[in-house]
Parts: sequence; C-alpha cells; structure tokens
Amino acid sequence: MRLYDYTHAPNPRLVRMFLAEKGIDVPLEAVDIAAGENRRPQFLEKNPMGGLPVLELDDGTHIAETVAICRYFEERHPEPPLMGRDPEDKARVEMWRRRMELEIALPVMQCFRNTSEFFAGRLPQNREYGETCRAHALRRLEWLDEVLSDREYVAGEHYTIADATALMGIDFGKVADVRPGEAQKYLRRWHETVSARPSANA
Amino acid sequence: MRLYDYTHAPNPRLVRMFLAEKGIDVPLEAVDIAAGENRRPQFLEKNPMGGLPVLELDDGTHIAETVAICRYFEERHPEPPLMGRDPEDKARVEMWRRRMELEIALPVMQCFRNTSEFFAGRLPQNREYGETCRAHALRRLEWLDEVLSDREYVAGEHYTIADATALMGIDFGKVADVRPGEAQKYLRRWHETVSARPSANA
Repeated sequence: MRLYDYTHAPNPRLVRMFLAEKGIDVPLEAVDIAAGENRRPQFLEKNPMGGLPVLELDDGTHIAETVAICRYFEERHPEPPLMGRDPEDKARVEMWRRRMELEIALPVMQCFRNTSEFFAGRLPQNREYGETCRAHALRRLEWLDEVLSDREYVAGEHYTIADATALMGIDFGKVADVRPGEAQKYLRRWHETVSARPSANA
Repeated sequence: MRLYDYTHAPNPRLVRMFLAEKGIDVPLEAVDIAAGENRRPQFLEKNPMGGLPVLELDDGTHIAETVAICRYFEERHPEPPLMGRDPEDKARVEMWRRRMELEIALPVMQCFRNTSEFFAGRLPQNREYGETCRAHALRRLEWLDEVLSDREYVAGEHYTIADATALMGIDFGKVADVRPGEAQKYLRRWHETVSARPSANA
C-alpha cells in the first residue's frame, strides 16, 4: 500500500491528518504538482482526474478522492471514529464535512485557482469568479464563528473529519487572502484547539 | 419523520430515487424554491444553507445535504447496499459518486445558475464561468462514455448511488444544454438501463 502525496496541497494534508488521528502509518510517494507530474500519462492511469492524493492498495487498485480514501481507513480501522458513531451521527458528520468542504475549502481553492499568479498561463482564469468565491468563503467564516459559539468541534462534541476539513480549508485560505477575522473569537478558539493536535502537523 | 422536498430540483430527486431503490417510504413536504420559500427564516432554521432536501427526524433534528441523508438511510436500512459492500467497495463507490457529483452534476448546476434566464436578477451571474462549466461537463460525458465501455454501472457490477447521482446530473443537463452525444453509445446504453428502473420516476 502507498499514498501518492504532495506536501503543499490541501487535500493530501487532509488525508495525512486523518491517518495521524487514527495512528495509521502509510508509506508516502511524492508526486510534484508544481512540476506537472500529476498530468503525466503514468499518473493519469492511477487517477484520470489528475488529483492528489491517490491510495494504491496492494492488489493495484487505486482509490482517488480524499473522502473516499478516508472512508476506506474508517471502515478498516474504526477507532477512533472520525466519521460518526451511529446512523444519525454519521449523517450529521457527513453534513458538516460537506459544508466545510463545499462552503469553505472549495471556494478557497477556486479563489486561489482563479486569482493567483501561480496559475496564470497554466489554466484559464476567471478573476470575477475568483472574487465571488473569496467573498463567499469570508461570509461562511462569519457563520462558522457563530456555529462554534455553542460547541467544541464543528460537528459537536468530538473531533471529526469535519474539523480536519475545515482546518485544511482555512489554513489554505492564506494563499487566497481568506483569514478568520480578529473578532471571530469562537472560530479562533477552535482554530487554536485543533491546530494544537499533533495531527495538524502531519 | 419527513423530507422537505421540491419536485423540480435535482438533489431532492436523488434522495427520492435512493429511497425508491431501498423501498423506503418517507412523507414529503413541499418547499417551493421558485417562490423563494427556502430562503425564509422558518426554513433557514432547518438548513441555514437554504438547500433542499432536508430530512427532519422525529426528535426534531435536521439533516441537510443529499449524501448525508442517503448515508442515514444506508446505515438504518443496509439492504440493498447502494454505498458499497465492504471497505474497498465503499471507498470505490464514494470515489465514483464524487466524480459524478463534482465532475458532472455540479458543473451542470453551475452552468444553469450562471447562464439561465431563471436566475437573471435573482443571483449575480457570471456567464463566462457558466460556459466553462458547460464545456467541462461535456468533456466529462465523453470520458464517462469510455468508462462505461467495460462495465454495466458507474462503480462496477452493481447499481449504486453513483448511478443515481450521474442520472440526476445528466437529466438536469437538459436545462443547461448538456446532453449525451449521439456517438456516446455506452453512455446511452447505461442511461436507458438506469432510466428504466422504477426509481428513475420517483
């Protein structure tokens, strides 16, 4: 088994954090996105979408998509549960994980992709759309601050994949000028708590 | 228990198809998106994102996000399995479900949202972004046709949530001028097969 990985991208970090919380050690193999290695035929055979990370199982099967990789490990190594404890909790964690992904992490990535110098000339950019995404992510941080006013973690009492997803999206926000505001004290308290976990450095 | 629903939107259809495949009957309550009922405070208390569908449990808990609602029913009523049969299969189904959602259904919805007369004046539109999404979805239909050349269903041998997600996205493509091409014979064969299931009319 091996995990195709890239240190500087947000999705691979999410899987590394997930594995660290579970205490699972998987050999990593670096694929250099900046050098375009993920667009080469050899990698596209593993994941035709070109995205990282990708998990290679011992029988040669490839599992792409961050949350699918996390699902594999959650099923194989249920403890500690990071994707919910019973049907209702699993549904609630999935809801919060998706909100963190689609309302925060994805707009941050789209903003970066559409406004950053890094992608200029590599990909068609739509600056107006990038700015819409930035504004959307910033509004959602305000909302998340409110959500966190009555709970310790994003999905309730326990640390889950929703927290790892939010941390991944918010920390990547640095490159898109999306930062928690000074006044967002609940969000800042949460950020300090989850950043202090060893998994945050995975 | 009740499901807040809207007949004409794609995500509520996906949950209705999922329930039909499971043989589960849940009382529906209509929320009229066209009349803006999903943006009223009473509904935003159920789902602050304003999206449909939303599942209301008997204890008053609300579960939003289509796949989270499906997860709830998959856990409560495992047969027939629509989200995978063992850890590896669950990961594979999740991977294909996400590809169908993020590579086809979401670009179709974004195209509709950014180019349709329906949203003109209701939401800020970015026509160029809408056209990028249309082109992306059309390219992915080409790819999906190839994927389906060696298998019956999107994730392999069994009908799963990945098929329901693809059907939802592709059928909604009508409003965004994203249609399978005449030459895409594997995609058309698949579309005919899954459309013939009773769940397609749910």
